[in-house]
Amino acid sequence: MTAAGLQTVVLGAGGLVAGELMRLLSLHPDVARIVAVSQSQAGKMAHETHPSLRRLPPIAFVARPAGEAAADADVVFAALPHGDSQRVMREILAAGPRLVVDLGADFRLRDPAVFRAHYGEHVCPELAADFVYGLPEAFRDAVRGARLIANPGCFATAVQLLLLPLASAGLLPELVAVHGVTGSSGSGALPKPTTHHPFRDGNFYAYKMLAHPHEAEIDQTLTQVAGQPRRARLLAHSGPFVRGIHATAHLRDAGFAARDIARLYAGAYAAEPFVDALARPPQVAEVAATNFVCVHVKQQGDEIEATLALDNLVKGAAGQAIQNMNLALGLPETAGLMHPGAFPC
Amino acid sequence: MTAAGLQTVVLGAGGLVAGELMRLLSLHPDVARIVAVSQSQAGKMAHETHPSLRRLPPIAFVARPAGEAAADADVVFAALPHGDSQRVMREILAAGPRLVVDLGADFRLRDPAVFRAHYGEHVCPELAADFVYGLPEAFRDAVRGARLIANPGCFATAVQLLLLPLASAGLLPELVAVHGVTGSSGSGALPKPTTHHPFRDGNFYAYKMLAHPHEAEIDQTLTQVAGQPRRARLLAHSGPFVRGIHATAHLRDAGFAARDIARLYAGAYAAEPFVDALARPPQVAEVAATNFVCVHVKQQGDEIEATLALDNLVKGAAGQAIQNMNLALGLPETAGLMHPGAFPC
Amino acid sequence: MTAAGLQTVVLGAGGLVAGELMRLLSLHPDVARIVAVSQSQAGKMAHETHPSLRRLPPIAFVARPAGEAAADADVVFAALPHGDSQRVMREILAAGPRLVVDLGADFRLRDPAVFRAHYGEHVCPELAADFVYGLPEAFRDAVRGARLIANPGCFATAVQLLLLPLASAGLLPELVAVHGVTGSSGSGALPKPTTHHPFRDGNFYAYKMLAHPHEAEIDQTLTQVAGQPRRARLLAHSGPFVRGIHATAHLRDAGFAARDIARLYAGAYAAEPFVDALARPPQVAEVAATNFVCVHVKQQGDEIEATLALDNLVKGAAGQAIQNMNLALGLPETAGLMHPGAFPC
Amino acid sequence: MTAAGLQTVVLGAGGLVAGELMRLLSLHPDVARIVAVSQSQAGKMAHETHPSLRRLPPIAFVARPAGEAAADADVVFAALPHGDSQRVMREILAAGPRLVVDLGADFRLRDPAVFRAHYGEHVCPELAADFVYGLPEAFRDAVRGARLIANPGCFATAVQLLLLPLASAGLLPELVAVHGVTGSSGSGALPKPTTHHPFRDGNFYAYKMLAHPHEAEIDQTLTQVAGQPRRARLLAHSGPFVRGIHATAHLRDAGFAARDIARLYAGAYAAEPFVDALARPPQVAEVAATNFVCVHVKQQGDEIEATLALDNLVKGAAGQAIQNMNLALGLPETAGLMHPGAFPC
Repeated sequence: MTAAGLQTVVLGAGGLVAGELMRLLSLHPDVARIVAVSQSQAGKMAHETHPSLRRLPPIAFVARPAGEAAADADVVFAALPHGDSQRVMREILAAGPRLVVDLGADFRLRDPAVFRAHYGEHVCPELAADFVYGLPEAFRDAVRGARLIANPGCFATAVQLLLLPLASAGLLPELVAVHGVTGSSGSGALPKPTTHHPFRDGNFYAYKMLAHPHEAEIDQTLTQVAGQPRRARLLAHSGPFVRGIHATAHLRDAGFAARDIARLYAGAYAAEPFVDALARPPQVAEVAATNFVCVHVKQQGDEIEATLALDNLVKGAAGQAIQNMNLALGLPETAGLMHPGAFPC
Repeated sequence: MTAAGLQTVVLGAGGLVAGELMRLLSLHPDVARIVAVSQSQAGKMAHETHPSLRRLPPIAFVARPAGEAAADADVVFAALPHGDSQRVMREILAAGPRLVVDLGADFRLRDPAVFRAHYGEHVCPELAADFVYGLPEAFRDAVRGARLIANPGCFATAVQLLLLPLASAGLLPELVAVHGVTGSSGSGALPKPTTHHPFRDGNFYAYKMLAHPHEAEIDQTLTQVAGQPRRARLLAHSGPFVRGIHATAHLRDAGFAARDIARLYAGAYAAEPFVDALARPPQVAEVAATNFVCVHVKQQGDEIEATLALDNLVKGAAGQAIQNMNLALGLPETAGLMHPGAFPC
Repeated sequence: MTAAGLQTVVLGAGGLVAGELMRLLSLHPDVARIVAVSQSQAGKMAHETHPSLRRLPPIAFVARPAGEAAADADVVFAALPHGDSQRVMREILAAGPRLVVDLGADFRLRDPAVFRAHYGEHVCPELAADFVYGLPEAFRDAVRGARLIANPGCFATAVQLLLLPLASAGLLPELVAVHGVTGSSGSGALPKPTTHHPFRDGNFYAYKMLAHPHEAEIDQTLTQVAGQPRRARLLAHSGPFVRGIHATAHLRDAGFAARDIARLYAGAYAAEPFVDALARPPQVAEVAATNFVCVHVKQQGDEIEATLALDNLVKGAAGQAIQNMNLALGLPETAGLMHPGAFPC
Repeated sequence: MTAAGLQTVVLGAGGLVAGELMRLLSLHPDVARIVAVSQSQAGKMAHETHPSLRRLPPIAFVARPAGEAAADADVVFAALPHGDSQRVMREILAAGPRLVVDLGADFRLRDPAVFRAHYGEHVCPELAADFVYGLPEAFRDAVRGARLIANPGCFATAVQLLLLPLASAGLLPELVAVHGVTGSSGSGALPKPTTHHPFRDGNFYAYKMLAHPHEAEIDQTLTQVAGQPRRARLLAHSGPFVRGIHATAHLRDAGFAARDIARLYAGAYAAEPFVDALARPPQVAEVAATNFVCVHVKQQGDEIEATLALDNLVKGAAGQAIQNMNLALGLPETAGLMHPGAFPC
């Protein structure tokens, strides 16, 4: 930790994303303090719930109201269950932190009607307009200097990074289907039937067919980047692994035939610190526990198959939140995020 | 199904063991009907909860009182949460079925004080004396003709079958430590932190250290078979697989040096239809979904390492319950239980 | 085993598919004998290589030439490495068995040029025309009475069964992308880097991008059934599980809007003994070790997402081979194939 | 990398342990250069074989003779297949590096007869006497200033750390059985039947029963520390996970009854930077990809159950090698080794 000496607060600190956030913040050179707010875990040490924190400076869970916790903070990360952050956001804002990063879906969608269609009634829909959607690869300039950031969803990050170069190049068709597979850590810390080991291990199946709510934020970005209405169908699947999201898209367009799409991707991501365009298919194991994304495009004439891997808890959540914090506060974008991961894992 | 035409009832039919029981009963040549009693699942078809039942004759969950369900039954299988069968046993007995097989721990221990020490107060401790402990390899004669059978625990079955030949031969020391590993299906159908996929996959750890309640029934059997006080320490571990129990014991005794212990095991199990003494280490995957047990002994002078594998849901529960039913009713012991399993799985 | 008393030969008996074939043939009521031909395993018992065979009637591996082995046989199953069966097929045919089922790719493609493009030079391309493509759900009448059957590939079976109802109804577009995931048993019995446990466990990635050879047989069937050129892109992926293939297709067509596509599938498969149209997403674990296929379609206006699960070693190989044998020899189609599988597994 | 500017060489750089070594060396503040020597991988970049290296400074595999590579080096790490380092050791020594750390078994055993009994003939048995056995928790003083270090085996590290406090306290019986379970990465980078995913996943079994060669080095240490002949039986098992070793010992001794053995362990490891005595059972997932060891003792009267978890590739190999390097060169013992790992993983 350096002179920047950031005071940070993590709301919902008992969750898996929060555990990753605190691990990464603990290793961040500019963070001086982490306050872990959790109603359910208060009284315990954070490492009792999150074993990865045991060799890092000790953090105690506290059960403070969000606003009170935010009062001391430079940065507030809200890693609450979807729907909870809208209930405490005004309170947080009133406390006046330099930066709020919300990791839930509450403030990702600018159109209140779209939010309502996917998530139901919003307590303070008017606040959404003040949030910047924190996908640095698409909106880096907006993130710089932002005070309120809505961190993208894990699947949403994967699908957007898979399609962004095409959207930017005007090569994206109106509707694209993306096949996505998520590891079980995407379901959070609370046991449920879909993450019951006897039912998840050795298994594979689709879920939320034609109805995944992350489509809304994906469409919002693609439409903005492409400059015309664009949308994606996320074909979501549950895989028998813990960490990672894998996404695959197949597209066919007469416009591809004359282009080298792999080169297009290589160029689009050449300057990106966390996205690598590979010459071979990416593997979820090679990005596990890192903020890195691997993407690969295979082309044959007018057809392409594009694939991507990222860690749902890091680039899909906690790591991206810190990447956004770094940008918003003028720190080096990669500060505290260059851990390379281990392989095999 | 044949002329025997047994009417069976499964209490607690929503559980994993009950699912296996109904799968095996559906394939049993002498079973005419299966009544699936479940308060929590009533109104659903059994195959909605247990996918393995979907291609078998349809069974509907019903929410009948245990005694009423037992009234029609030749055989009642109680696959209830531990502690529940003692509350309905008098009611079941009053209904007068030909046979009751209790798959819980309630009636396994003959000594009420021992039961209380491990499981707490018993509602009807005096009934335990009427139950035969259903481990055919040790007590086949008693099981034949029994009307009340207490089906052994999964780990207890493994440890006893691992040590029985030594106990019978008077070669068992007073205390033996057995290292056991169980798959996640041993924890049942309800999600819990220890079976949460992100925490179980890729993981391995000990639990209930020096305090596993199955030790009580193991000790009861070993003492009876050895003719003097004998006990085992079950060092229980959770493994990252779904089905199976693996058990390992290391023993050293001057008495071993002059004996071929592998041959002792081969002889002890030669006539057993479900226990095979192998010339190589058994694997849990090779007994998955079967009622078979594989055991192997490696010897070096006065030391032996004995290992065993079985399926916790089958030989460790549902399959053994049917083996007991077959014996008690005078059917062929292997009826409906010779399914060989698939490998790899 | 019954009066039919079939003499069967399995060539390439050391492989995983052959293991499943011998397990299923051993349980088949009309099979009297299984000869296991394997050059590499000769001298061993089949259950030493295939643990699932240990409780079934013993089979010894023998190293006989294919033609000599075929001389005694009613049915010859060739479960050889791709490219090997074409080298022994004339020899097998000369021996005059009642039926030959080839489980490799050598005789699946009627057009020699297409074969060559995907698999290289063929030793006896002229023989391919004599083989019936053994996908009963598409070509049952041709399989009945056939003497030479080319058994479909595992992924090919999945993709065809996923799309057949649309192809039959004239609703299939010219090109469809299907996302497929296979378990590691699809790679066979020999260890290789892609099935090295440290590299496969917890991992997920695409392979053979835009170049999977199963596309050729898929296109052959779809074109024949649809009556016009139709083709599929198989987006193949490796998943961290052992058994099973999962396939997903997303299609959008104005023609769908007026139809109930789920009902179309239900109708198309209503009479199929091994294909079930479910009202929820299928899971690979629920078809493991069975010949059953589960399929589900979700529709929203002009869009559908269709998903399917099968066991690559059974319906994708050995089970389908026996289903074809049953049909070809006039036995009940489901003989020896109704084993329901266990769950969880 | 700092002023220390160490020049390091890794022999056998294509292996899994070497991959971890290069990952950790790349992150080490005092390492200036890593030369990756591999005959089989020469011509490739190290990150092509070891994906974890992709975001670290690039390293190219080179095919130099060991002695020549050592000529430039401050530190030579030999991560060669067992038996290979003895063939090049004289050549390496002649080149005069400051430090050699051998990660194989060749120089771990001081008694040539013991080596021969477990590993066969040795090319240069007389050199073994010059090597220090690099288990810092037992021999830290000897490691400080050593020029030749034999790095312990993975299972050997686990068993020794599990028993050391008892050995030091004079509480270790003459023979102790330790149950050990290893993940598949312990078998190295080359696919083999025991690491074939279809055979390893969902499986569990014993191997090398009563014959694990690591027993020799364990016995050497325990005897030295206890001051009298002591030996351990390593009951080795293969588990269906990638990283980690779990070890369990059950001991019963009249001498335990009067002592608080958990406190003994806590005291013995209080000052150890990489060994933590926990108040609950350790999990292999919580030490994955770290150099940390977790140990726990449960006591009941005169009985204890002691359990331990470590990462076989890190504390069991590469991390310990660097810990030894740090000690030998007078660097801070924990330099480059405090990475906390992620959880879940």
